[in-house]
Amino acid sequence: MTHTPGSGVPEPFGHYSPSTSSPDGTIWVSAQLPVGGGVRTDSPVPEQARQAMLHLVSIVEAAGGTVASIAKVTLYVTDIGDWDAVDAVFAEVFVTHRPARAVLQVAGLHHGFRVAADAVAWRVDR
Amino acid sequence: MTHTPGSGVPEPFGHYSPSTSSPDGTIWVSAQLPVGGGVRTDSPVPEQARQAMLHLVSIVEAAGGTVASIAKVTLYVTDIGDWDAVDAVFAEVFVTHRPARAVLQVAGLHHGFRVAADAVAWRVDR
Amino acid sequence: MTHTPGSGVPEPFGHYSPSTSSPDGTIWVSAQLPVGGGVRTDSPVPEQARQAMLHLVSIVEAAGGTVASIAKVTLYVTDIGDWDAVDAVFAEVFVTHRPARAVLQVAGLHHGFRVAADAVAWRVDR
Repeated sequence: MTHTPGSGVPEPFGHYSPSTSSPDGTIWVSAQLPVGGGVRTDSPVPEQARQAMLHLVSIVEAAGGTVASIAKVTLYVTDIGDWDAVDAVFAEVFVTHRPARAVLQVAGLHHGFRVAADAVAWRVDR
Repeated sequence: MTHTPGSGVPEPFGHYSPSTSSPDGTIWVSAQLPVGGGVRTDSPVPEQARQAMLHLVSIVEAAGGTVASIAKVTLYVTDIGDWDAVDAVFAEVFVTHRPARAVLQVAGLHHGFRVAADAVAWRVDR
Repeated sequence: MTHTPGSGVPEPFGHYSPSTSSPDGTIWVSAQLPVGGGVRTDSPVPEQARQAMLHLVSIVEAAGGTVASIAKVTLYVTDIGDWDAVDAVFAEVFVTHRPARAVLQVAGLHHGFRVAADAVAWRVDR
């Protein structure tokens, strides 16, 4: 089943859904660029990270999950030297919840952004 | 539980299965290079994308899923500038179904291909 | 639910858990660098691969899974030319079990390591 983007999240640019969920209640979130909220491709990495993660949270909530039901997050960065910066923002966003995580340095992100993120969560509304 | 490759998909080159499924019915598909069907490493990106995605579909079907039960696809490209091209092929392959998705620019793919893909789906045969 | 690292695995360096599990019993393992066991960033790739995979196994076992319940592994390498080397270590670690798998060449790994790995598994203790 497919889900709508959630508050503040742009509509998909292509042929995909912001998230889908499996019959067992797993929520699969599409990779999110830090689009919106005044973030530009040359905005500081913490701003980009925060915006991408807020998209994740909105999408998960729109699909019947919560911040605490996010099981794993993958952060995509164009410079692994930004690890500490994105970790700090991650802590701000997740507070007491500590999902599983991977931070991967990719060779490039669409439109020239420096951070993107996706996630897996589970539905708590069923 | 492990599954066979499915129609038209080459046997694994190494120590992995084309897909496995969890007791809850989730199908985990191994990353697919666009091997076979006359595709070469220098074939146009749309041909590579189509072949990799057809492998995904064959593998999912062999494991008890369907195109519509594909929850998320990750496309790996060596040039993020190919985003529009792979999105167009994605729309051709999935038609009305819109899975969750990530398009990632990796630093290189095995054998020099330009596109690869993996997926998560769920079984509908149980 | 979050899980402890398991035997021989370093505590997380940042705001994440070694693994989490969903209510359906899926175990999500954080990406593991080959830290510990005398492995350095310039250690041979097979040593790095073995150490990262042993972390995966320890984490999965600490979360209620087994080697045979690992559904999919993603190996991150900084040089796709190391494919054969990491595949050989993979076969040593998994023996008769063949999970689904992706081997991805990333643009860089934290601290300069050459191999990292993450995984999805399921719990067998419930």
